[in-house]
Amino acid sequence: MSIRPQLESARASLPALLALDGAQRAALIRLMAAAIRRRTASILQANADDVATGTRAGLSTAMLDRLTLDEGRIEQLAQALEAVAEQPDPLHDAAAPTVRRDGLRLRQVPAPLGVIAMVYESRPNVTADAAALCLMSGNACVLRGGREARHSNQAIAAALHDALAEAGLPASAVTVLDDPDRSLLQELLGCDDLVDVVIPRGGEALIRHVAEHSRIPVIRHYKGVCHLYVDRAADLDRALSLLVDGKSTRPGVCNALECLLVHAEVAARFLPRAGSAMREREVSLRACPRSLPLLDGAQAASQSDWGHEYLDRILAVKVVDDLDAALAHIRRYGSQHTEVIASEDAAACARFVQQVDASAVMVNASSRFNDGGELGLGAEIGISTTKLHAYGPMGLASLTCRKWVVEGEGHVRHPQT
Amino acid sequence: MSIRPQLESARASLPALLALDGAQRAALIRLMAAAIRRRTASILQANADDVATGTRAGLSTAMLDRLTLDEGRIEQLAQALEAVAEQPDPLHDAAAPTVRRDGLRLRQVPAPLGVIAMVYESRPNVTADAAALCLMSGNACVLRGGREARHSNQAIAAALHDALAEAGLPASAVTVLDDPDRSLLQELLGCDDLVDVVIPRGGEALIRHVAEHSRIPVIRHYKGVCHLYVDRAADLDRALSLLVDGKSTRPGVCNALECLLVHAEVAARFLPRAGSAMREREVSLRACPRSLPLLDGAQAASQSDWGHEYLDRILAVKVVDDLDAALAHIRRYGSQHTEVIASEDAAACARFVQQVDASAVMVNASSRFNDGGELGLGAEIGISTTKLHAYGPMGLASLTCRKWVVEGEGHVRHPQT
Repeated sequence: MSIRPQLESARASLPALLALDGAQRAALIRLMAAAIRRRTASILQANADDVATGTRAGLSTAMLDRLTLDEGRIEQLAQALEAVAEQPDPLHDAAAPTVRRDGLRLRQVPAPLGVIAMVYESRPNVTADAAALCLMSGNACVLRGGREARHSNQAIAAALHDALAEAGLPASAVTVLDDPDRSLLQELLGCDDLVDVVIPRGGEALIRHVAEHSRIPVIRHYKGVCHLYVDRAADLDRALSLLVDGKSTRPGVCNALECLLVHAEVAARFLPRAGSAMREREVSLRACPRSLPLLDGAQAASQSDWGHEYLDRILAVKVVDDLDAALAHIRRYGSQHTEVIASEDAAACARFVQQVDASAVMVNASSRFNDGGELGLGAEIGISTTKLHAYGPMGLASLTCRKWVVEGEGHVRHPQT
Repeated sequence: MSIRPQLESARASLPALLALDGAQRAALIRLMAAAIRRRTASILQANADDVATGTRAGLSTAMLDRLTLDEGRIEQLAQALEAVAEQPDPLHDAAAPTVRRDGLRLRQVPAPLGVIAMVYESRPNVTADAAALCLMSGNACVLRGGREARHSNQAIAAALHDALAEAGLPASAVTVLDDPDRSLLQELLGCDDLVDVVIPRGGEALIRHVAEHSRIPVIRHYKGVCHLYVDRAADLDRALSLLVDGKSTRPGVCNALECLLVHAEVAARFLPRAGSAMREREVSLRACPRSLPLLDGAQAASQSDWGHEYLDRILAVKVVDDLDAALAHIRRYGSQHTEVIASEDAAACARFVQQVDASAVMVNASSRFNDGGELGLGAEIGISTTKLHAYGPMGLASLTCRKWVVEGEGHVRHPQT
């Protein structure tokens, strides 16, 4: 069975979505939240099926936890949709036109991207979140979740379709693919005439698979290998707070620290404190030869520790000769996600900001601030580590483009005499 | 021979480029213009070789014309570089930071994309233009021109390398690939760890080849199938000017008109005038059954005329029942490039602007205004018909991204008590 009719039907919903104003789109999202609350029982039942199947299939505890819904999580899900509806309209066009000398009026106005395909793994809440973010920005969406959440995703989709029907909109605006054997995914990624962008969310393997096989433009987020560089001019108390916050408060997320770089001149003063703070928080250390003697209980690092995304209570530590050596290390092993400098030397900070290629560069601030909510973007659809289109956390505005609107009174480039 | 060492070397030039300020980058571009003037003789000699080879190989007259340089064209090339140097610095950061309640300062600052690969065909001036636009925006570039311009491209590269040497910068910032059998292109498109973006410029076949084989994000511009819709409320004199300007002043460019859609109520009044204006300008017509009787000397259109990019003195003509039918035709056959409405009815114009998915929507203005120079962007590196990152003409700003810079005084997300 070809996927094309489903994608064509998703595309055919665009004119109806384009005709909605911001208030109508927000009202639609609120209807979706209400429909999800109404259908709580059937969503929980479908989810119980998925969890039972997953348990039999031997899914890890972490996977099962991400998969499992309960009444509280469904209420959170509905509230998350209501928060999307509260966001400013991403298609609102505030800018005044530029008027050329000949009277031609030029504007760039926000427009939806069109049909957005989301490819994701176990968490069924992505089905509702992604649909809300896409619709709020005037886009249709094609959602291809993991097979482990198959029934949950279909039950959530039924609620979303209730809301679309109430609003008089085609169900195909939220097209949920049932693709238990990945065969549809392969075909989907070839349909660049019907889908405008693919956003994969999940593990690195999934994202690489999508990026390598897609003819459709992909917004990627591979991983976060975030470094903290403690400069010789660092305030060491501040540096220690940045280390503790970045490494130990939530080690499993992409904006957590993975590697500490310390200027040789402050290593002897800073590392013993850093080591004991990490030990207290059960973070184990992989240390370079110069830092190893300064860190009680650390293991020697091997080559594979540099650039490694642990997503765990593990930290790589390296002493560097100077700022340039830190920059070179980050250039080689960084992941263009988040990089941090602790320094009171304005020139060193400026050079770090200029030279580091990352979606967010933090100066005396925690890596954990690289987050849509913290940066004021509202709900986040992902974090891009590709520099095209979006770099860093993606809010609603990242689901739009800008088209030119040129208005004249019969203006031409080559007037005929 | 692997291409990777060359790409690694291009990438290694980025720190030196990042360290330049806007004035230094502009000065470098002026040195490049001067070096090209100094090397005029050797560029012309290399170009004569290419033209001789091309003539023997039976290149078309149009291809040979695009390939051929003379003193005047080389001077134009140098002047084009000087115009790039006059542009405002695309990395200049004017915006004040947002200050959060806790004092954390948030900014998004422009940053280069990194290493940009340009893949293009016969015109050797692209070698200099692309290098100037990339360097002016702080990017390194890898240039892979067509084999028909091989010697010309190398001679221009020698001039650009003179200028890089004078400025104390690595030659690899402008890496010109010699790839007579396309083997390097294939490998290049797989190196997504070393190249940030690929911009193909040339015919649709080249662009599709790059888009289909690249793991690196691609900015594409397939084609311009631009429509003029003459509404029932059109001022027909204005509509006629838009048609003449859009179709006949330069039919070989992508923002020229390819298809005229006319509301049924004005067809009998407009089409005879349109037909005679087109005949006078030697434009032949491919007409739908309803327009055929109204157009002297027109041929009947076949299905393949809809959505066809003629790039020639040919125009498809179709009578439509109303605005909705025009929108449906454009949705089906448009190329997301430029679409035009002629109408004095504000509601019809607003609906056209809202519903049409194109990089530029023209209201009572010629399709020919969809051009970087006309829209105030300065030198143009291409026109994107992909909605991600850039949509429409791409100026220097399209060669940059925005990274977050977050500045604090030891700010953390979860302060430890």
